[in-house]
Amino acid sequence: MKALRYVTIGAAPEISEVPVPEPGPGQVRVKITAAGACHSDSFLMGLAEDAWQSFGYPLPMTLGHEGVGVVDALGEGAHGIEPGEPVAIYGPQGCGRCYPCAQGKENYCERAAELHITPPGLGTDGTMAEYVLVPDARHLLPLGDLDPVANVALTDAGLTPYHAIKGSLPKLIAGSTAVVIGAGGLGHVAIQLLRALSPATVIALDLSEDKLALATDVGAHHAFLSDKTAADNIRKVVGARGATAVFDFVGAQPTVDLASSVIGVESDLVIVGIGAANAQVGALAKPYDAAIRAPYWGSRSELMEVFDLARAGLVHVETERFSLDEAPEAYRRLHEGTLRGRAVVVP
Amino acid sequence: MKALRYVTIGAAPEISEVPVPEPGPGQVRVKITAAGACHSDSFLMGLAEDAWQSFGYPLPMTLGHEGVGVVDALGEGAHGIEPGEPVAIYGPQGCGRCYPCAQGKENYCERAAELHITPPGLGTDGTMAEYVLVPDARHLLPLGDLDPVANVALTDAGLTPYHAIKGSLPKLIAGSTAVVIGAGGLGHVAIQLLRALSPATVIALDLSEDKLALATDVGAHHAFLSDKTAADNIRKVVGARGATAVFDFVGAQPTVDLASSVIGVESDLVIVGIGAANAQVGALAKPYDAAIRAPYWGSRSELMEVFDLARAGLVHVETERFSLDEAPEAYRRLHEGTLRGRAVVVP
Amino acid sequence: MKALRYVTIGAAPEISEVPVPEPGPGQVRVKITAAGACHSDSFLMGLAEDAWQSFGYPLPMTLGHEGVGVVDALGEGAHGIEPGEPVAIYGPQGCGRCYPCAQGKENYCERAAELHITPPGLGTDGTMAEYVLVPDARHLLPLGDLDPVANVALTDAGLTPYHAIKGSLPKLIAGSTAVVIGAGGLGHVAIQLLRALSPATVIALDLSEDKLALATDVGAHHAFLSDKTAADNIRKVVGARGATAVFDFVGAQPTVDLASSVIGVESDLVIVGIGAANAQVGALAKPYDAAIRAPYWGSRSELMEVFDLARAGLVHVETERFSLDEAPEAYRRLHEGTLRGRAVVVP
Amino acid sequence: MKALRYVTIGAAPEISEVPVPEPGPGQVRVKITAAGACHSDSFLMGLAEDAWQSFGYPLPMTLGHEGVGVVDALGEGAHGIEPGEPVAIYGPQGCGRCYPCAQGKENYCERAAELHITPPGLGTDGTMAEYVLVPDARHLLPLGDLDPVANVALTDAGLTPYHAIKGSLPKLIAGSTAVVIGAGGLGHVAIQLLRALSPATVIALDLSEDKLALATDVGAHHAFLSDKTAADNIRKVVGARGATAVFDFVGAQPTVDLASSVIGVESDLVIVGIGAANAQVGALAKPYDAAIRAPYWGSRSELMEVFDLARAGLVHVETERFSLDEAPEAYRRLHEGTLRGRAVVVP
Repeated sequence: MKALRYVTIGAAPEISEVPVPEPGPGQVRVKITAAGACHSDSFLMGLAEDAWQSFGYPLPMTLGHEGVGVVDALGEGAHGIEPGEPVAIYGPQGCGRCYPCAQGKENYCERAAELHITPPGLGTDGTMAEYVLVPDARHLLPLGDLDPVANVALTDAGLTPYHAIKGSLPKLIAGSTAVVIGAGGLGHVAIQLLRALSPATVIALDLSEDKLALATDVGAHHAFLSDKTAADNIRKVVGARGATAVFDFVGAQPTVDLASSVIGVESDLVIVGIGAANAQVGALAKPYDAAIRAPYWGSRSELMEVFDLARAGLVHVETERFSLDEAPEAYRRLHEGTLRGRAVVVP
Repeated sequence: MKALRYVTIGAAPEISEVPVPEPGPGQVRVKITAAGACHSDSFLMGLAEDAWQSFGYPLPMTLGHEGVGVVDALGEGAHGIEPGEPVAIYGPQGCGRCYPCAQGKENYCERAAELHITPPGLGTDGTMAEYVLVPDARHLLPLGDLDPVANVALTDAGLTPYHAIKGSLPKLIAGSTAVVIGAGGLGHVAIQLLRALSPATVIALDLSEDKLALATDVGAHHAFLSDKTAADNIRKVVGARGATAVFDFVGAQPTVDLASSVIGVESDLVIVGIGAANAQVGALAKPYDAAIRAPYWGSRSELMEVFDLARAGLVHVETERFSLDEAPEAYRRLHEGTLRGRAVVVP
Repeated sequence: MKALRYVTIGAAPEISEVPVPEPGPGQVRVKITAAGACHSDSFLMGLAEDAWQSFGYPLPMTLGHEGVGVVDALGEGAHGIEPGEPVAIYGPQGCGRCYPCAQGKENYCERAAELHITPPGLGTDGTMAEYVLVPDARHLLPLGDLDPVANVALTDAGLTPYHAIKGSLPKLIAGSTAVVIGAGGLGHVAIQLLRALSPATVIALDLSEDKLALATDVGAHHAFLSDKTAADNIRKVVGARGATAVFDFVGAQPTVDLASSVIGVESDLVIVGIGAANAQVGALAKPYDAAIRAPYWGSRSELMEVFDLARAGLVHVETERFSLDEAPEAYRRLHEGTLRGRAVVVP
Repeated sequence: MKALRYVTIGAAPEISEVPVPEPGPGQVRVKITAAGACHSDSFLMGLAEDAWQSFGYPLPMTLGHEGVGVVDALGEGAHGIEPGEPVAIYGPQGCGRCYPCAQGKENYCERAAELHITPPGLGTDGTMAEYVLVPDARHLLPLGDLDPVANVALTDAGLTPYHAIKGSLPKLIAGSTAVVIGAGGLGHVAIQLLRALSPATVIALDLSEDKLALATDVGAHHAFLSDKTAADNIRKVVGARGATAVFDFVGAQPTVDLASSVIGVESDLVIVGIGAANAQVGALAKPYDAAIRAPYWGSRSELMEVFDLARAGLVHVETERFSLDEAPEAYRRLHEGTLRGRAVVVP
C-alpha cells in the first residue's frame, strides 16, 4: 500500500510503498477514508537530528495522527467491534488500565512512556496511508454517517480545543468573555465551540486579516490584529473585570505576555499546543485566582461529545482536500501557512 | 473445580464440581483468592420462578459478583496484563465502547442489555469458584499488596456506597450533616467513607443495637434506633436546616418517608440498593432543591479510589471468613441477618 | 399614589389610592418604571379564605413581585446606592446574614419565616404601584440601559428558569437533550436560556398550538403537543438514552408522569413552580441516578447573569403592556391564558 | 480608648489613646474581645516610605485585620443585628453590590479600589483597639459560643488557607497527595483543613524543626526539611504521579521552583500570601493541565464554614496571648519568627 512517510531528518516526507500491516493480538486494522495534517507533524519534521532522537521515534515513520476509516480486519482476540463499521481513531492512546485511562483520559496515561506506547504518526505508523493498525477496539469511536473528509480533523483540531475549553466552562457563564489567540486550524474550531457551549462574548486575535475574517465568519463577536493595539482593543470589550478566559493557541512569549495583561480575577489562561514561555506568578503578579494551565489533546468521551456537536451542526472544520500523492504538498502548504483551515488527505 | 452454584429455584445454592473454564478471545482467567457474598444474591435466590425467569439468567449459575484473585491465563489476544498479577474484578462490566463506558462508568453501560452483557454471578458464572473468566483485562484492577480477604468486599460493599456518596460530596462541606439508614454491610462502610471524605457530622440509624454499636465503632457521631423516635432524634442534631444528605441503604417505604421528613433545602436523598417507594415531589412537598436519586454500583476509577482509601487505612470492612465448602452456610447466615459485616468465601 | 391591591378574598384586585411610602432605616424607595404580573399572584388570589390565611399575608396588599425602577429616596443609614440609578428589584429577599444569604441565595434564606420577611407582592406591598420600598440597597441590581418594560419579567420569569437550568448545566453537554413542559411565561424563556447556555437539543411541549409556535420561534428544535403522543414523540428524538433533563413548568401529576417516562440514566427531572405530585423513586422505579428536584426562584448573582444574557441579546421576554389602570385587565387575561408571554404594567 | 497604631514609617507600632469611634449611618461598633496579629501587618510596616505611600493608607492607622467581639452600638439605619451578639469580623470587605460581592466573595470586590474601600487594619482603623467600626451588619458573622481568643485567627489564618484549599478539593480525592510549604500561622491550619476535608496524604515542609514537629502534631503524614533533599523526599511519597496539589505559603522563588518540580499532571500549584515568582509555563514546561494560581483571603460563607469546622473540633489554631499593652511585643516576636502559631491580643 501507499503511505506518506518521514524518512530523512530534515527532508520533506515521501510517498512510499509499504506492506499492508497485519493486525496482531487484540489489534484492529482500519482502512483509512480520511487523514488530517497537523502542525505538530511539521514541528517534529522541523527538529534537528539530536532533538528528533530525543523523542525515540523510528525512521522511517508513516505520518498522521488524525484518521477516520472503516474497520477492515480484526487481530486474534479483538472483540467488541465488527468489520465494516465506520470509525474515528482516538489518537492519544494509553495503557487502558491506569487511573486516567480508567476514565478514558488516555491522553494523560500514567504508563505510556514506560510502556513505549505512542500515538499513530507520533512514534507509531500513522494514518497517512491506506491502512493503519490500532491497538484495541476501544480506540475506535463510532463515526456513524458523519462525512469522513469534513470531520476527520475533529479528532485533534476539534478535540484539543474542546478539552481546553471544557475545563473552563464553569467560568464561561453569562457576562463572561473569552479570548482566542490564533484563528488557524485549532483556533477557528475553538471559536465555534465557545459559541456552541457558552454565552461568552468571543474575541479572536490573529496576525493575518484572512484568519480574522474566518474568525468572524465562524462566530467571533470581535476580531483584532494581534499587534501592539491588541491589549487595548480587548480591554475596551472586557472592561475593568478583565477577560474571563484566554485560550492561547500560539503559546509563545508575546502571546503569553498579552494574555497575562488582559486576564481578570478568577480567570483562566490556557496555553494550548506545544510551547513554553516565562510568566510571573503570585498575588503580586497576576489577578487573584487567575489560573495558568496547559492541557493536552482530550479524552475518549470528549471526542464523542465533539462528534455530537458536529452531528448537531454546531462545529465545522474548514478543510482543503488532497490525495495521498499530494500529501507532501499539503504539508508544504501547512508549513507556509497558506491553508484556510485544515489539510485533509484522502488515500 | 469446585463452584457454589444456584441450581434449583427456591433451593439453597450447592457446591458442584465443574470444569475449569478456558479463556476465550480477549478473556482473562483469574484464580480466585477471595469472593464476597451479597444481599443481592439472596434477593435473586428469593425470587419465585416467574420473577427469576424475567431476568433471563441461566441455571445453574455460579454465584458471586465480588471477587479478587491472581491472573491465571490469557485468552488469545488478551493484552495489557500478565499472569501472576494480583487483581480485583470490576463487576459492573459493560460494552467498553459506549459513552458511559468510555469514561469507565460501565455500571451505566448503554448497551449491556442489548448485548446480553451481565456481571459475574448476576447472569454469568461468578466468583464463588476456584476460577472465573473476565471478558477483558480492563476489568481487572491492580490489587497490589492489599489483603484479599479483608478487601474483596470493597468491590461492591465499598464501591456502591462510595459512588453514592461521591455524587453528594460537593454538598457535604463544613457544617453539613449526613444520615446513614442501615448500618449493615454497605452502611458500615458508608459511615467510614463519609468520615474519610468529608467533615460532615454522621448520624447512623438501624433497627439493631448491635449494628448501632458497629456504627459508632466505625465513626458515626450519633447512632439512633430506626423507630418512631428517629426523626426527632435526627432533628435535634441537624436543627432547622435539616439533614444535608440521607443515604438510605434500605430503600423501603418507611425509610424513604423518614428520610423525606428530615432533609433540608438543597439536600440529597440517595436511595442505595434495589428498592422502590412512593414519594411526593415538587416545591409544595419537599424542601426547595432537595434531590432524590438512586445510583447503582460505581465506575472503574471509583473502585481504584476505594482501594486507595483502603491502602491509606481509611476504610475497613468487617468480615467473617468461610471456606468454599462452607459457602452455603455463609448465605444462610446472610439471609438470617446474623453476620457482623460481610461474609467472605476463600476457595 | 395609585396601587393595584388585593383587597377582598376571591374578588379581583383593585386600583386604590394609598400614601407614598416613606423609607425607614436602611430602606430604599424605588419609583417603579415597570412591574410584571405572574401566575403565582393568580394562584394566591385563587385561594379560599382558609388557605389564604395560612400564608399570613396582610389584606389589603399591593400586588407585584417583579419590578424595575429608579432609586428615589434613601432611608436613614441606607448606603451604597444613589438616587437616580436605574435598578431591578431582587424579589426573594432574605435576612442577609444566614449561610445561604451570605452567598446571595436569599431565595433559600434560613430565617425568613422566623423573621417574617416576605417578598414584595407576596406578603409585603409590591411593585404594582408608583413607588415601592425595598429593605436594603443590596436588593437593587444595576439595570443600566436595559429597557424596563422589555426586561422587568426577567426578575422572576427569567430568574426562575435560569436557576432551574443552571443546576443542570453540567449534564447539558454536547449530545444532550432537554425537554421543556409548558411554553408559557417561564417556559418560553427557558427555551432561550437552554439555547444560549448549552448545546442541548431542546424539545418543547404544550397544550396550545400557539404556545408551540412561540416555542419554535424562540429556538426549540422540536415542539410537540402535550397529549398521549408526547412520550413517543420525545422518545423518537432522545432515543434509548432518554432525555438528559426535563424542566416541568406545570408540575402536575400528568406532566410529572410524562417526565418520569422519558428521562434517562443520570438525568434531571426539575419541577419548576408551585406544585406537588406523586412519584415512584428508587432503582427499581427510575433510571439509575436520575434526580428529581424542585428549585425556587434564584440568587442575586444569577439575576445579574440573566441581565447579562439580555444585554447580549440572548434572551427576550414576549410581553404585553398595560397601564396601571389596566392592571386588573392584565390579571384577567393572565387567568384566562390568553396572553402571549408576560403582562407588564407601567405606572 | 487604647489602640495599637502604626504612626511612624519604619518604627514599631505604638499604643495610643484615641476617641471611641461613633458608628455612622449603617455602621456597627464592635467591642473587641480578641484581635490577631498577621505577617501582612509586618510586611506593611517593613515597607520603605515610597512603597507605603503607594498603598495610600492613612497614618497613623490602627492595626489589626483579624477581630472578634460583641456588637456594641448601631449607627442610624443599621439593621439585622442587635447589641450584645458575639460576632466575628469579616475582613475583606467590598461594596456589597457588584457581582462577586453578590455572592459574598467580597475579597474579590470589583469596585473596592475605585470606592476606596479597605479592610480594617489595612487602610482603615483596625481591630487592635477596644472598639472598631464595621461598615455593615453583613460583615459580622455569628460567633456563637466559640472562644474569642482561640478562634479569632480563623478570620484570616483559617479563612485564607480554607479558600485556597477549597478551590482544589475536587482534585484531592482518594489516593491524592497535598504538599504544604511553610508550617507557620497559616500552614499549620492548612494541614488540619486538608485532614478534615479530604483523604489526601499530607506532606509538610519547613525550614524549622520546631515547625515540622508542629506539622506532625496537627496531622501531617510526612514532614520534611525544606532544603535540597526536599524534592527527593516528596517524590518518594508521591511517586511518578507527582503531587496532586502544592500549597505554597512562602511564595518565593525557591519554593515555587520546588513546587514546580514535584507537581503532577492535572495538579494545582497554589501560591498563598503576598508574593511573586518566575515560572515557566506551557506543555513543554509543566505537567499537562497543572494549574498555577494565587487566591486571596476568602468569602463570607467560607468563613462560616471555617467556624463550623472549629465547632466540630476539626481545626485549632496554636496561639500565644498578649494584652493590648503587650501588642508591640507580639509584633516583635512575629517579626523574629519565634511564635508558635499566632499572636492574639486581648484588649
